[in-house]
Amino acid sequence: MKERHSLILSFHEVSPAAERLRYILSEEDDMPTPTLFTEMDTLQREGDELEWKESARWVKFEEKVEEGGERWSKPHVSTLSLHSLFELRTCLQTGTVLLDLEGYSLPQIVEYAVDCNIEEGMISPDLREKISFVLLRKHRHQTKKPIHRSLADIGKSSSSTSECHAQSRSMNDIADTPSTDQLKNKFMKKIPRDAEASNVLVGEVDFLNKPFVAFVRLAQATTLGGLTEVPVPTRFLFILLGPQGKAKSYNEIGRAIATLMVDDLFSDVAYKARDREDLIAGIDEFLDEVIVLPPGEWDPKIRIEPPKKVPSADKRKSVFSLNELGQMNGTAGGGGGLAEDEEMPVQHELGEELAFTGRFCGGLYLDIKRKLPWLPSDFYEGFHIQSISAVLFIYLGCITNAITFGGLLGDATDNYQGVMESFLGTALAGSVFCLFSGQPLIILSSTGPILIFEKLLFEFSKNNAIDYMELRLWIGIHSCLQCFVLVATDASYIIKYMTRFTEEGFSSLISFIFISDAIKKMVGAFKYYPINTDFKPDYVTTYKCEFPMPDNSSSVSGVSACFHSLNVTALDWSQLSKKECLKYGGSLVGKSCKYVPDLALMSFILFFGTYSMTVSLKKFKFSRYFPTKLRKLISDFSIFMSIMTFVGLDMLMGLKTPKLIVPTEFKPTRPDRGWLVMPFGKNPWWMYLASFVPALLVTILIFMDQQISAVIVNRKENKLKKGCGYHLDLFWVGVLMATCSFMGLPWYVAATVISIAHIDSLKMESESSAPGEQPQFLGVREQRVTGILVFVLTGVSIFLAPVLKFIPMPVLYGVFLYMGVASLSGIQFWDRIKLYMMPSKHQPDFSYLRHVPLRRVHLFTLIQITCLAVLWILKSTFLAIIFPVMILGLMVVRKMLDMVFSQHDLAWLDDLLPEKEKKKKDDAKKKGKEKEKKKAKPDDSEEEVRNSGFCCPL
Amino acid sequence: MKERHSLILSFHEVSPAAERLRYILSEEDDMPTPTLFTEMDTLQREGDELEWKESARWVKFEEKVEEGGERWSKPHVSTLSLHSLFELRTCLQTGTVLLDLEGYSLPQIVEYAVDCNIEEGMISPDLREKISFVLLRKHRHQTKKPIHRSLADIGKSSSSTSECHAQSRSMNDIADTPSTDQLKNKFMKKIPRDAEASNVLVGEVDFLNKPFVAFVRLAQATTLGGLTEVPVPTRFLFILLGPQGKAKSYNEIGRAIATLMVDDLFSDVAYKARDREDLIAGIDEFLDEVIVLPPGEWDPKIRIEPPKKVPSADKRKSVFSLNELGQMNGTAGGGGGLAEDEEMPVQHELGEELAFTGRFCGGLYLDIKRKLPWLPSDFYEGFHIQSISAVLFIYLGCITNAITFGGLLGDATDNYQGVMESFLGTALAGSVFCLFSGQPLIILSSTGPILIFEKLLFEFSKNNAIDYMELRLWIGIHSCLQCFVLVATDASYIIKYMTRFTEEGFSSLISFIFISDAIKKMVGAFKYYPINTDFKPDYVTTYKCEFPMPDNSSSVSGVSACFHSLNVTALDWSQLSKKECLKYGGSLVGKSCKYVPDLALMSFILFFGTYSMTVSLKKFKFSRYFPTKLRKLISDFSIFMSIMTFVGLDMLMGLKTPKLIVPTEFKPTRPDRGWLVMPFGKNPWWMYLASFVPALLVTILIFMDQQISAVIVNRKENKLKKGCGYHLDLFWVGVLMATCSFMGLPWYVAATVISIAHIDSLKMESESSAPGEQPQFLGVREQRVTGILVFVLTGVSIFLAPVLKFIPMPVLYGVFLYMGVASLSGIQFWDRIKLYMMPSKHQPDFSYLRHVPLRRVHLFTLIQITCLAVLWILKSTFLAIIFPVMILGLMVVRKMLDMVFSQHDLAWLDDLLPEKEKKKKDDAKKKGKEKEKKKAKPDDSEEEVRNSGFCCPL
Repeated sequence: MKERHSLILSFHEVSPAAERLRYILSEEDDMPTPTLFTEMDTLQREGDELEWKESARWVKFEEKVEEGGERWSKPHVSTLSLHSLFELRTCLQTGTVLLDLEGYSLPQIVEYAVDCNIEEGMISPDLREKISFVLLRKHRHQTKKPIHRSLADIGKSSSSTSECHAQSRSMNDIADTPSTDQLKNKFMKKIPRDAEASNVLVGEVDFLNKPFVAFVRLAQATTLGGLTEVPVPTRFLFILLGPQGKAKSYNEIGRAIATLMVDDLFSDVAYKARDREDLIAGIDEFLDEVIVLPPGEWDPKIRIEPPKKVPSADKRKSVFSLNELGQMNGTAGGGGGLAEDEEMPVQHELGEELAFTGRFCGGLYLDIKRKLPWLPSDFYEGFHIQSISAVLFIYLGCITNAITFGGLLGDATDNYQGVMESFLGTALAGSVFCLFSGQPLIILSSTGPILIFEKLLFEFSKNNAIDYMELRLWIGIHSCLQCFVLVATDASYIIKYMTRFTEEGFSSLISFIFISDAIKKMVGAFKYYPINTDFKPDYVTTYKCEFPMPDNSSSVSGVSACFHSLNVTALDWSQLSKKECLKYGGSLVGKSCKYVPDLALMSFILFFGTYSMTVSLKKFKFSRYFPTKLRKLISDFSIFMSIMTFVGLDMLMGLKTPKLIVPTEFKPTRPDRGWLVMPFGKNPWWMYLASFVPALLVTILIFMDQQISAVIVNRKENKLKKGCGYHLDLFWVGVLMATCSFMGLPWYVAATVISIAHIDSLKMESESSAPGEQPQFLGVREQRVTGILVFVLTGVSIFLAPVLKFIPMPVLYGVFLYMGVASLSGIQFWDRIKLYMMPSKHQPDFSYLRHVPLRRVHLFTLIQITCLAVLWILKSTFLAIIFPVMILGLMVVRKMLDMVFSQHDLAWLDDLLPEKEKKKKDDAKKKGKEKEKKKAKPDDSEEEVRNSGFCCPL
Repeated sequence: MKERHSLILSFHEVSPAAERLRYILSEEDDMPTPTLFTEMDTLQREGDELEWKESARWVKFEEKVEEGGERWSKPHVSTLSLHSLFELRTCLQTGTVLLDLEGYSLPQIVEYAVDCNIEEGMISPDLREKISFVLLRKHRHQTKKPIHRSLADIGKSSSSTSECHAQSRSMNDIADTPSTDQLKNKFMKKIPRDAEASNVLVGEVDFLNKPFVAFVRLAQATTLGGLTEVPVPTRFLFILLGPQGKAKSYNEIGRAIATLMVDDLFSDVAYKARDREDLIAGIDEFLDEVIVLPPGEWDPKIRIEPPKKVPSADKRKSVFSLNELGQMNGTAGGGGGLAEDEEMPVQHELGEELAFTGRFCGGLYLDIKRKLPWLPSDFYEGFHIQSISAVLFIYLGCITNAITFGGLLGDATDNYQGVMESFLGTALAGSVFCLFSGQPLIILSSTGPILIFEKLLFEFSKNNAIDYMELRLWIGIHSCLQCFVLVATDASYIIKYMTRFTEEGFSSLISFIFISDAIKKMVGAFKYYPINTDFKPDYVTTYKCEFPMPDNSSSVSGVSACFHSLNVTALDWSQLSKKECLKYGGSLVGKSCKYVPDLALMSFILFFGTYSMTVSLKKFKFSRYFPTKLRKLISDFSIFMSIMTFVGLDMLMGLKTPKLIVPTEFKPTRPDRGWLVMPFGKNPWWMYLASFVPALLVTILIFMDQQISAVIVNRKENKLKKGCGYHLDLFWVGVLMATCSFMGLPWYVAATVISIAHIDSLKMESESSAPGEQPQFLGVREQRVTGILVFVLTGVSIFLAPVLKFIPMPVLYGVFLYMGVASLSGIQFWDRIKLYMMPSKHQPDFSYLRHVPLRRVHLFTLIQITCLAVLWILKSTFLAIIFPVMILGLMVVRKMLDMVFSQHDLAWLDDLLPEKEKKKKDDAKKKGKEKEKKKAKPDDSEEEVRNSGFCCPL
C-alpha cells in the first residue's frame, strides 16, 4: 500500500481514495449494479426559445451528435482533458450532492436541487424561478431524419430559421410520460434491458455569475418524461449551469462526468456512495488509472476507435476486494498497467478428454457420459440460416471429393470400388458418424493414404490370385477389432504429446496437398484440351481434322483406314465422332485433330474466377458497404454465390467444359459384384488370420489420421463448448470400417481440410451490444444437423444428377483451391513463414515476437519447413502409405527440439510437452508465483472456459 | 487568461505555470533548440555484474526493447500513467537539478551530481563511492543481432547464462570515445544532424533507502563515450536510483521524463529553464495539455500507432508568444483541443494565375515570368528513378491512344489522317508543349470531340466538293488566331468559376469514357473472334472449313466456286487463306469457318490479368512484405511489370492474339498527300474567311477541354509548387493548332486521364524521418523531362516496331481500364457515390459528413449524377461535338445550386463561387472573426504554401 499512498499524496493531500473505495465496494452485494446509459444535453437557444439539445450519449463508448451533419458520430473512446476532470472534481466538491433523493418527476427533483443550493448559500433565492425555468425546458433528441425528407428541403434556402416551433411559455415543457419518439427509438436494442439512465445537463445562462452544480442520485430509477432519448428510467442527474462565456469548458466537464458514469468502477461507486467524499474518491481512483497521451504525439482531434478488447471490470474491481490486497502492489503499481507484463502464453491443455483413466473403456464411458446430455441441443441448435450455407459448402466439397476419390479408386481397383461406391460409402459413413460420434463437426472422407493402401492391396491380390474383396473384408474386420482395443485401452491419450508443431505441420501438409491437387487438375485441363497455338485466324481453311474415307484413298496422304469390320465401309465417315472413328481403326488426318479450342482457357477462367470471387466475397464482410447483416450473409454464402455465378457464366458461354457427372443408377460400379461381400469361401483359411498384419498398418494409419484431425478440430481456438470424444470417434470409425468392408465400400476417416472448412462455416460472432464494442468470436455452432444433411444430400445426389450436371469441374477445383488456402490462414506456422518476407519493423505485433528473438522464431519455422519438405517428398513415393505414421516422426522431431530451444521459447512458439509442462508448473509453484502467473495470462477467459468444465460438464 | 488560471489553480496552488513559461519561451531566440534523441537505460544484473541496458528510445515516438524478442518494438505513442508524471514532478521538486553544468566526461558529471546530492543532505556521504560505481557501469545497447548467428545458437540450450563477459571491476566502465558499434549504428540516419541526446538512467540498488535523483543540463553538448547508442553528444542527463522493489515504478518515471524530453514544448523549456521551478512549470503545462483515456474504454497494453498527423509544435508554442495572447482563450480553453472546432473547409483559391490583369497579354507575361526561373530545375529534377516508370507508363498510354485515335481518324477521313499522322502529330505536339508550356505535366492527345468534328468536316467537304485538307488548314489558322485573342485578353480567368462540382463532373465523365471504351474494345474481341460454343471435343472431325475445289463439285453441297480469273483453277485451293479464298470469289463451307478458337478467351485473360495485376501491385505498397523501398519500386513499376508479365504469358502461349502494330515507314498514310498542306489554290477565296465560323466552335472546344484539364492537373491536392500557366498553355495549343494544320496532322489538346496518370506516377512522399512518423505527400515531381521523353519515344516508336509488336492489344486495353479506374479514385464525387451503399454508421469520417447532413450530401451527389447522365447521353449523339461547351452547362447548374444549398453546405461539398466567397469574407471581416477563421483551417500549411508565393515566386 505504501507506494499507492505516496503517489496519491504527491498530488492531493486527501486521505487515500482507495481506502474509502475498498470500504464501499467490498460490501456484500448480492445485486450487481445496473448498466448505465448516459445522455448529455446542452442548453441551446433556438430562435427566442431555450431548449436542451442532446449532444452526446454513452453506452460504453461515446457517440457525439455531429452538429452540422445532424447525425451520430461513430462510437469512439472518450478522450478527455485532465482539466475537465479536475474541474469536475471541484464541481462535486463545491456543488450540491443529493444522494437517494425520493423523486418522481423532474420538476420536483429540480425544486429539491435548487432549494438545496439556496440553502447551502451557493445561489441567491431570487434565481430559483429562473433556474427552474431553464431546467424544465423541452429536450430535443437526435433522431434520424428520414432521407426522403431531403427532397422536401430543396427550395428551402440555407438557414434553418424557417423551422417553426410552437412557442410554449409554460413553466414546464417536460411531459410526464415517454413520447412515441422515445418508444419507437430503435437505439433501445443496443441498451441492456436492466439499464438505467444518467442524464447530464450542461449549459450557460446569462443570469448566473457563479456555477450552479447538482449531482442527484434517485432512490428509485424513474422515467422522467421526455428527458432521455430512450424510455429508460433515470437514476442519476448531473446539472451544471454556469455564467456565460465558458460553454466549451462546461461541455468538457459534462463529457467528463458522462464518461465517468459509464466507467464500470465509477458507476459502482456512484451507486454505493454514502457521501460526497466517496464520489470524489471515485474520481481520484479513476484518475489513478487513466492513460495519458502526450500532446505532441497525438492529435486530440482524432477519434480513437474502440479497441478490440478492454480490460475487464472485474479485474479492476478485484483490487478493492480485501482478500486480494496482497497482490495489489505488484499489479497496480503500473497505474494503467503500462509496465511490462510477465505474461506467459496459454498452456496447451487438451482437457480431461485425453486423460488416461486406466479403466477398461474408461475413456469411452466418459465420452458418452459427456456427450449424451448435449444430444438434444445437437439437433435443435442446427436450425439456423448459417447452417444452410455450411451444408451447401461442405456438400459440394464432399461430392467433389467423392467423385475424385471414386474415380481414382475405380482406376486402382479395376472398378471394384468406383464412383457409385464412393457416393454410397460417403453418405453412409458420414451420416452414421455425424449421428453418433463424439465430435460431429468432423467430416469423414476418403483420404490419400487409404487410396494408396487399396492400390497396393489390389495389386498384391491380383498378382497372387487372391480374392481382393474377401481379403479386404478380413482386413477391415481385424482393423475394426484393433480399433476397439485402442478404444478400450484409452490409447488415444498419447495424442496429448501432439503439440502445435505437429498439428500445424500435419494440417499445412494436407492443405498443400489440396492446393497442389487443385492446380494439378487445372493444369490437366490444358493437357486434356490442348490449345492449337499455331492457329492463324486467317488460315482457318487449312485447319481440319478428317478421317480419310476408305474408298477415297487418293485424296490424302494418310494411309491407315478401317478394315476391322464389314460395316465400316457402309458408314458415313464424315459423321463419325473421333472416338468412333478411332474405334473402327481409322486414323486422323489434319492440323487440328489434336487440339480442342477454348475449353482449356474457359476452364481456367472458371477455376480462377470461382476461387478469386470466393476470396473477394469472403473479405466483403470487412468492407463498409451494405448493412452488417447483409454483408455477413454474402460472406457466408460466398462459395455458393461464386459457384452459381460461374455455373451461370459457363451456361451462358455454352462451351462443353467438363461437367460433374454423378452416377444415376443405384448399382455397383462393377456388374460382377453385389452389395455384400461374403467373408468365407474364396481365400484359404489362414488368410483370415494373416490379414491381421496389414490390418495393423491400416489401424495405425486410421488412428493417426483420425485423431490428428480431431485434435485440429478440437483445438482451443475454436472455443468448442460441448467437448469432444476421441475414444467415441475412434469406436465409430472402427464400426464403419467393418460395415464398409462388408458392403465393399471404401474406408473412411476424418478429412482435415473439409472438417476445418465445416468449422469455419459455422463460426459464431457476438452481436455487438454497446455501439463500438467489437463482436467477439463466440464459438462454433456445434450440432449434428449440418453434417447429417451433407451426407444425406450426398446420398440422394444420385437423384440430383440432372441439376448437378450443370456444374463444371473447374468450378469445383476452384472450390478445392479455396478450401486449401483458407485452411492455411490462421495457422501460426503460416504466419511465421510470412515473417521471412517482412522486414522486422513491418512485422505484426504477434505476442511471440515480443518474447522470442526473431532469429529463434525463424529457426523454428525453418525446422518445420524442412520437416514438411521431407514429408512431402516421402508422400510422393510409395512410402505414402505410412504417411500418417510419419506424423509420429514429427512428434519425435518435436521432442528433440527441447534440446535446441529453451522451454520459454517453446512455450511461446509451440506448446510444452506434458512432462515439461508439469515440471514447469512445479517450479512455478515452488517459487510461489503460480498465482501471479495465472493472473497475467493474456487470455484468461478462454482458459476459464476450459477449466470450468464446459468441456467436460460432468 | 482568467479561464486558464482558474483551471490550473483548481488542482495545484502554485502560481500559474503558463506565466513562467511565457517569460522564458518568449525570449528572443535566434537559434531554434536542437532535436533531442532520448535513450533510457535501466540497471540490470547480468550474472554477477551490473550493467546499464538500453530499454527504450525516443526520436519522436517511443521504441521499446522487447526483452524476450531481443529487438525494437514498432514506434508507438508513449502511453504514460498519470502517476508517473506526478512522481516525476515530485522527483524534480526534491532531487538535484544542475543546469548548465560544465562537464566533459561522465565520471566528472557523476561526481558533481553526487556531491550536490550530498550537500543538499539527500544522501549520506558514505554512499558516494557506491553510487558512482553503479553509475559508471558499462552500457549495453540494443543492436541488431545478425540472423545468421541464429544457426550458431543451435546446440546452446535455453538460458543465456553461458554468455561470458569480461569481468571488469574498475571504477569506470565507460570509454571516452565512441565505440565502433556506436559509429556503425545505422539508426543514425533516423536522427537529425543537429540532434543532441538526453540520457535517462533508472535503476534500483540495494544500498539506498531513499531515491537518488539528478537532472543535469550540460553547458555544452558532449559525447560521453559509450553512454548513448549513437554518437550524438549528450545535453541532458536524468538519473534515478532508488531502493529495491519498485523497479516498475522507476521505469515509468523514466519513460515519463523521456517522453517529456522529446516533447517539442518541454524540450524548449528544458533548454531555456533558469531553475527547477521552470522545469516544474514545464511539466504542469504538459499536464495541462495531455489527453486522457478512460481506463474502462482502453486497454493500456495496446500500443497506439503514431497518428498520421500531430499538432504542430509551433501552434502549441504560439500560445506563449505575447502578441497572440488575445486569442488564447478561444483556442486553448479546450485543453487538449478536444472541443468542437469551428473549422471551415479550405477555400477554393486558384491563385493569381487566373487573375484578370486587364493588360494586353498581361496573363501571358506573368505566366512566362513565373515559369522562366523554374526552367533549369524542370530539367535536372527530372532525373530520378521514378521518372523511368512514369515515362514507360505514359508512353504506353500515349501510343495506345495514338493508335486508337489514328485508326478512328483514318476511318473518318478516308486516311487523310491515319496512324502515321497520329504518331507524328502526337510526338510533335507533345514534345513542343512539354518543352515550352506553362504546365508540362499536361499530356496532349487527340480527344473525342475533335475526332467527331473532323468526321463531320470531312463529310461536309466531300459532299460539297471542297478540299478537306485546305479547309482544315484555314480552320486551324483561324482557331490559332482566336486562341491568341483569348490569351491576349486573359480570357482564361473565367475558369475561376469552375468549382469542384464542374471539375469532378468533367473528369469522372472522361474516366467513365475510358473505362467504357476499354470494356467495349474487350467485348469487341469476342465479336471479332467468335467462339464456337457448339464445339464438342469428340466431334472434332465434323468441324472444318474448306473451300470447295472447283473441279470437285460433287464432294460437298456448297455450290459457289471461283470463276473470276483464269488462274484460279490452277491454285492449290487447300493452301489458300480465308482472305485469299474470299478474294478469289470462293465461299466457305464447314462448321468452323465463322469461329476462331481461343483468341477471345485469351484476350480476356490478358485484359483482365493486366488490369488486376496492376491494381494488386499498386496496393502492394501498403503490404507488410519486403522493405519499403522495394515495395515502392514494385508499386511504381506495377504497370510495367504487369505488361511484361502478360506479354510474357502471351508469348508463352504463342496464340495469335491481336498485337500492337505501329507504322514502320515514315510516309503519310495516304500516298496522294505530302507532309505539307498548301493554304491556297484548291478552294474559293471566300472559304478562307468563312472558315472563321467553324473555327470558333473548334476554339471553344479546345479552350474548354484544355483549361478544364489544366484546372484538374493544377488542383491544390496535387501540391504543385512551380505554379502553372493557363495563358501560356493556351498560347502553345494555338501555335500547335496552326502547325499541325499546315502539316496535315491531327489537332491536339490536353488529355485529362493521361495527364492525371502522369501526375500520379510522379507523386513524391517524404522519407519518414523519426521512426513512426508517417510519410507525407510532398507534391509532384514537376519537370519537363518525362513528358519530353514520352513524346520522343512516341516519335521513334516507328523504329521500335520490332519490340512493340509483341505487345498484345488486350494488354493495352487493360492498361486503359486501369487508367480510367485509377483516375476515379481520390475524387470526392466518387467517394460520395460510394456513401449511397454504406449504412451511415460504417461511413468513413469525411470532414464534410461531420458538417453537412447526410441527406443533403446525397442530394448533392444525386444532382451531380443526373448531370453526368445527361452529359453521357448527349455525348452518345451527334451533340458530342459541343461536348466541352456543355461543361458551361455544368457551371450554370452549379450556379443554380446556390439556390438549393446553403453556402455553408456548399463550402464543404464544393467550393464557393468567387463573388459568394468574397461576400462571405466580407461578412467575416465585419464580424472581426477573420483572423480566427484562418487559424482554424484544417490544412494551414498547404494554404501557406500557396499564399507565401511558392506559386508565384516573383
